[in-house]
Amino acid sequence: MALTIGVPRETEPGETRVALVPDVADRLLATVDDLDIRVEEGAGQGAYHTDADYDAAGCLVVGRDATFDADIIAKVAPPSDDEVDRLGEGQVLVGFLSPLERPETAQALADRGVTALAMELVPRISRAQKLDALSAMSSIGGYRAAIGAAERLPAFFPLLTTAAGTVRPARVLVLGAGVAGLQAIATAKRLGAKVFGYDIREPTREEVESLGASFVELEVDIEADQDESGYAEQVEKEKQERQPELLQPHLAEADVVISTALIPGQPAPLLINEEAVAAMDPGSVIVDLAAPNGGNCALTETGEEIVAHNVQILGPTNLPAEMPVHASELYAKTVAAMIEEGLEADAFAPDFDDEIFAESCLTRDGTVQNDRVRGLLGTAEEAKA
Amino acid sequence: MALTIGVPRETEPGETRVALVPDVADRLLATVDDLDIRVEEGAGQGAYHTDADYDAAGCLVVGRDATFDADIIAKVAPPSDDEVDRLGEGQVLVGFLSPLERPETAQALADRGVTALAMELVPRISRAQKLDALSAMSSIGGYRAAIGAAERLPAFFPLLTTAAGTVRPARVLVLGAGVAGLQAIATAKRLGAKVFGYDIREPTREEVESLGASFVELEVDIEADQDESGYAEQVEKEKQERQPELLQPHLAEADVVISTALIPGQPAPLLINEEAVAAMDPGSVIVDLAAPNGGNCALTETGEEIVAHNVQILGPTNLPAEMPVHASELYAKTVAAMIEEGLEADAFAPDFDDEIFAESCLTRDGTVQNDRVRGLLGTAEEAKA
Repeated sequence: MALTIGVPRETEPGETRVALVPDVADRLLATVDDLDIRVEEGAGQGAYHTDADYDAAGCLVVGRDATFDADIIAKVAPPSDDEVDRLGEGQVLVGFLSPLERPETAQALADRGVTALAMELVPRISRAQKLDALSAMSSIGGYRAAIGAAERLPAFFPLLTTAAGTVRPARVLVLGAGVAGLQAIATAKRLGAKVFGYDIREPTREEVESLGASFVELEVDIEADQDESGYAEQVEKEKQERQPELLQPHLAEADVVISTALIPGQPAPLLINEEAVAAMDPGSVIVDLAAPNGGNCALTETGEEIVAHNVQILGPTNLPAEMPVHASELYAKTVAAMIEEGLEADAFAPDFDDEIFAESCLTRDGTVQNDRVRGLLGTAEEAKA
Repeated sequence: MALTIGVPRETEPGETRVALVPDVADRLLATVDDLDIRVEEGAGQGAYHTDADYDAAGCLVVGRDATFDADIIAKVAPPSDDEVDRLGEGQVLVGFLSPLERPETAQALADRGVTALAMELVPRISRAQKLDALSAMSSIGGYRAAIGAAERLPAFFPLLTTAAGTVRPARVLVLGAGVAGLQAIATAKRLGAKVFGYDIREPTREEVESLGASFVELEVDIEADQDESGYAEQVEKEKQERQPELLQPHLAEADVVISTALIPGQPAPLLINEEAVAAMDPGSVIVDLAAPNGGNCALTETGEEIVAHNVQILGPTNLPAEMPVHASELYAKTVAAMIEEGLEADAFAPDFDDEIFAESCLTRDGTVQNDRVRGLLGTAEEAKA
């Protein structure tokens, strides 16, 4: 019995990526017996892959309907309502599904009997690293945030000595030392900027410093009127609550701020208030990678590039789509790894007791599997009632 | 007797630079006795300097007329016809004057009795290095070409290892190893690309390689049917004439091409023909810094950003204006150095027998001083007759 994978063209505005690239499709076809990969005409266009490239890799280039009539449908962006309606019982959907942001999509997929595997829910265990699409895309986001800032800053990143004189290097402050933040630090550092990193999680200091950046320590001034552990606790609480205020002097000195702080399932923390923006030098640049979650900066407009207090503030929502060749290549590798992980004698039969599939499975057997999403849906139900 | 310097607001479309920045004005005022610096309202706006910044530096913020009523008028872009009409006998104009591209402007300045000092004509001698505005601006052009290419390439510049896999570094080929080319090489190298440099001048090899790039050697296949020196000569001639063809395999392998080859006073040499563009990978980027001089690429459209054969081709005309803070800072330093060089007891009285002023002086005493410009004007006269 042949296994079929469908790769539809992405329809989300601005989405340039494709879920499988010819090279990765080629490798899958070589590994899996009796596999058909159906790619929609033009699906690779945004990522500079032609239909001929897919054909040469052994894929079938087909119309849209045929891609949705496959055993596994591989996508990048969460399905539109129309795409959900095309799916049904026994089909598997693999892709970013924005489970916490679009719980109603999860419900619709469950209602239609679809087995939906969300790339966002892949557990961060070493065995699942090659399925970690989120980290790969965060790397791209961090890199592009630094490049975009360099493109917009009216000054050099590196210290530069010319015949006419020497210019000082740019000061780049990165807020949040996750995958995106660390890649932004590394890229700004490569370009020769003076880089500073901040994270509320003190243990990230080592990673920040290992990239050659200085770790920003917030200074709180509390009376030591209690025992040591109570004091440390109070300092931490104080730092957390007063972050925007305590960060302000550091922000004022930065030419570029790249903010990446997220709290899973919650709005992004406010780290940059309007006062801090106003204190920055004219022409400075803020790239707010937390924009899709409300932003770390009070003035960020999601999806927009604005100027406020003479500071350029970018609120990008999909930086990986700006680098579609490598974004698609890396994403396709994670999708292929997910599919291979679930293969059993050349059929797709994942073991849902396995941590990887237990966690990444969003819907199955007509129900939403993820507890947090079920919680969100429950709340929504109650609100309606 | 007070010396006055006027700094008008630049009026050329897209020009964001200003000829003096507050810091440099401040230093001039401290050095020169009885100096007035008159800055037009809003002159620094494009470079993020406010009228208040100039005021704080001790400049007089004035209307447009007053800036043109000064002993020395410091500008960035060549004067417009209106600006030429505002100048007269005894006044000194310092700035980029595009002498070879706009000989008629030189004639008009001479007719009005203006002493015009062209930053482009500053001799490249070590004593004049701090006046070398052209090199400083070329550094900026090379840096920004690399950053702009990184921003547009749909892939990473560096080799990157993520959990999902490793991506190969971008291949960047820089044509022309002058100041701009070397800075483009250095910047692409910083970003982790695999960089190749080419220049028809073999002695540049050492500089290219010292930046960590590989020097591209064109391969010609000539029968050795003559003596050794004749053979070497024929090889050089062959290379020069067949550059576009011989470069083609190297261009085809590049993800990014930054071309900077210029021949003074002549159209830029053609190095990238349409066939070479068509052979590049989809999504590749060409930044043609020779665009103002006709371009090194056959498809370049001056001042435009086009896509041809799925390759992005940029023909920027004023990259320094995209980085106005540092471009203005460095430019202002060269202008100040030029003024200081010509001071005699706090009056501006340059010694025109000195090599620096002999060469940079475009017009004086009612005549065009530069031989090549005079030649161009002579030709133009003859053509009219």
